[in-house]
Amino acid sequence: MFRNAMPRYEILSEEAMATLDGGWRRIVSEIGVEFLSDRALELFRQAGQKVEDQCVIFDPDFVLEQVAKAPRAFDVQARNPAHTVHIGDDSMVFGSVYGPPFVREGDVRRDAKIADFHSFAKLAQSFDAIDSAGGVVCEPEDTPLDSRHLDMTYALQTLTDKIYMGNVVSGVNARDTLAMTEILFGGREAIEATPATISLINCNSPLRWDDRMLEAQFEYSAANQAVVLTPFLLMGAMSPVSIPATLAQQMAEALTGIALSQLIRPGAPVIFGSFLSNIDMQSGSPCFGTPESAIGLLCTGQIARHFGLPVRSGGGLTSSQTPDAQAGYESLMTMLPTFLAGINWVMHSAGWLEGGLVASLEKYVLDVQVLEMLQHEFTPLEIDEASLAFGAHDEVRHGGHFLGAAHTMERFRTCFYRPFVNSSDNYDRWMRGGAKDAAARAADVARKRIDEYEAPPLDDAIREELQAYVTRRRRELGD
Amino acid sequence: MFRNAMPRYEILSEEAMATLDGGWRRIVSEIGVEFLSDRALELFRQAGQKVEDQCVIFDPDFVLEQVAKAPRAFDVQARNPAHTVHIGDDSMVFGSVYGPPFVREGDVRRDAKIADFHSFAKLAQSFDAIDSAGGVVCEPEDTPLDSRHLDMTYALQTLTDKIYMGNVVSGVNARDTLAMTEILFGGREAIEATPATISLINCNSPLRWDDRMLEAQFEYSAANQAVVLTPFLLMGAMSPVSIPATLAQQMAEALTGIALSQLIRPGAPVIFGSFLSNIDMQSGSPCFGTPESAIGLLCTGQIARHFGLPVRSGGGLTSSQTPDAQAGYESLMTMLPTFLAGINWVMHSAGWLEGGLVASLEKYVLDVQVLEMLQHEFTPLEIDEASLAFGAHDEVRHGGHFLGAAHTMERFRTCFYRPFVNSSDNYDRWMRGGAKDAAARAADVARKRIDEYEAPPLDDAIREELQAYVTRRRRELGD
Repeated sequence: MFRNAMPRYEILSEEAMATLDGGWRRIVSEIGVEFLSDRALELFRQAGQKVEDQCVIFDPDFVLEQVAKAPRAFDVQARNPAHTVHIGDDSMVFGSVYGPPFVREGDVRRDAKIADFHSFAKLAQSFDAIDSAGGVVCEPEDTPLDSRHLDMTYALQTLTDKIYMGNVVSGVNARDTLAMTEILFGGREAIEATPATISLINCNSPLRWDDRMLEAQFEYSAANQAVVLTPFLLMGAMSPVSIPATLAQQMAEALTGIALSQLIRPGAPVIFGSFLSNIDMQSGSPCFGTPESAIGLLCTGQIARHFGLPVRSGGGLTSSQTPDAQAGYESLMTMLPTFLAGINWVMHSAGWLEGGLVASLEKYVLDVQVLEMLQHEFTPLEIDEASLAFGAHDEVRHGGHFLGAAHTMERFRTCFYRPFVNSSDNYDRWMRGGAKDAAARAADVARKRIDEYEAPPLDDAIREELQAYVTRRRRELGD
Repeated sequence: MFRNAMPRYEILSEEAMATLDGGWRRIVSEIGVEFLSDRALELFRQAGQKVEDQCVIFDPDFVLEQVAKAPRAFDVQARNPAHTVHIGDDSMVFGSVYGPPFVREGDVRRDAKIADFHSFAKLAQSFDAIDSAGGVVCEPEDTPLDSRHLDMTYALQTLTDKIYMGNVVSGVNARDTLAMTEILFGGREAIEATPATISLINCNSPLRWDDRMLEAQFEYSAANQAVVLTPFLLMGAMSPVSIPATLAQQMAEALTGIALSQLIRPGAPVIFGSFLSNIDMQSGSPCFGTPESAIGLLCTGQIARHFGLPVRSGGGLTSSQTPDAQAGYESLMTMLPTFLAGINWVMHSAGWLEGGLVASLEKYVLDVQVLEMLQHEFTPLEIDEASLAFGAHDEVRHGGHFLGAAHTMERFRTCFYRPFVNSSDNYDRWMRGGAKDAAARAADVARKRIDEYEAPPLDDAIREELQAYVTRRRRELGD
């Protein structure tokens, strides 16, 4: 997995951080945060916080006491130990797109199917740059709604041997995910010792945590599974049209959600979540890859470090409807700040199109291409006497070229990162190759990867137990 | 013009800088640098440097003494004073692509014509984000080679009122450019007082400054015009396959070129140039937007500041043959580090395709789009009590939305950057609009801008004097 040992790019002064700190404190103590869960309200009441209807009025220092119980970093285990990840410190973990109801292939946009879900799982397995196979990589509309989480979890568990995300639609779904994870990892104790799932708990921003997500959070945190407490902030809609105001709100929401996890189980692994962009103020459409979202992202990394928490943000986000130039630069407009900010858990790293409504195989491959480039870019340069290669200069001297120099010959295979989608072919060669643009070449790569996919080995007894669980639960759920 | 008041992203430690410093010193003092110009060799000999054939063996401290005479920052005047630029400090100046022999429009790639050159000049004039109309924006093959510089300079001078670049093909061309600039700005004294041209002097790397470029440098530096001393480094061909070795070479070349300008005229304005990428080691093709080029760029900004010099690098560089996703992310892979590194003079900011062989109107517009986004992103965030907008939170409270909040209503027109090419339209609206991708929308913008272009006012007497000069010189040059 990738460790980002490059410097962080931090843009908040101490004064700015203090102002933001005052901001979230005022929000949680004067306006409070709603938790639509009696269990949550009871926990906060017992802990001495003021509860009015479904709103908790917080003592900010109490929130910070809870936050301090969360681990600075933790591992999430994969069934292939080589794919276990570390979350926090300077590690960066990259996962697939999450949530799209649609799939785009070439010029066709259509409902996502379980076969698409399987294709994305295979891609996740096939690319080293992707650490997490994801969760709801797309919503397979050809599977029954009530048992869909079983189909998705089974696919992630069997088609990949990487970490995967837990279902959060309800407490029931979370319990199913946990049961299947226990089967895969050898029991509850094994997954409580080291988390084996990571789950996205979104805030219904502004300042409201909803009942269904909270039910899932209770299940996962009680089982010591990682949760990502994520304010869902499209400025102008779910937060004010001000980046500082939005950052303060994000702190208020994320920190109070994290505090709940610590009340459920002190020390439970959590991630300071961020999903922060803005709407177009004329149309109301969500926009991604915007300057405002990049600034928010840079600040968010710094803010999470201020609280000693692992942080989630970023990804390859774009509003574009197709994998075109806009998709290329908007995605990087998010992903490069993701690296600069040292984000630990990067959802939507690959496959996101059209504001997250569409999952795309071509875009998945293009995003992996960019991820690989950035992983090379954010690897510290070693500068020592040997790296100066004086001998090469002395061999070539004036006006010559280095193609045949001894220094070059010894290193030409590995000296530069070699892209697998980008073309630097000269025009004639590119025309002879069919004049394919990047999206067309990415489609070729995706097809080949899926065709050549090999399933990671899985014990037959475990597979059968998983299948039996899915069959039984599907019946119980009436599907 | 844009000032980048955000922090610099610096990745070189003091030790690394000291190692690189040792590197260039060893190159210039043990291998030396060739200057294919008797005038240059004579200047260096008179100044006490050792000259062997056409190679100067330098005392590195002598080089630094000369470099110290160069201004840390200077202005380049435009005929419209509102378009005069400052080069150095935290200013960033953006110019058009430079050098392509071909033009691409949609699916057609063809030789560039003077009409294309005019179109690019009109775009440069029309976009506020572009400060320099450029120089050889493309090579108009339908104009006679010997007098082409007259046609290009006249077009830049009359179709735009922004700064422009001087021709560097020869000393003769440089003298013509100067003569035409004197006409436009009211005489030699006026342009010696404040430079009115900026010219690209490329090194024939490794370690050789060629005669024709040096002739141009003599003309421009003697006239106190700005020159950009640019090592031309594609690692693997013109420099070793090592970033540190290439940075040391870049320092050796740029600093000795700058030293020459200071011998020609102490205090002459110069820019520490950088054009640094790598070749594909299998095909030999130049690659752009690579991780290695981004690392080199970040280091280059820091190195130039170490010497107290304005710095040129970056741009929207890509190997891609079309304005596709690859063009989108590769260009940003160069342009975002350009901002992080605080580059002062950014050539190839707009219009570059296919490794610089192709100029594209669509790409020009897409690049301006990205430039505008980055200029917003690199504007420091103001964080104070008012920016926290507590009143907005208090108005909306839990689970509501901010669309109609008073705070939003007061700011919705200006709160976010509004892109002019990016689409965040929902799918139905986008389909009704013709399902155009970013390149197609950019083509529409380019066409509209060119159609609606209005020439900036120019005194008739000056225009006639310029025309008379061009006519006379064209005749003298035999075209």
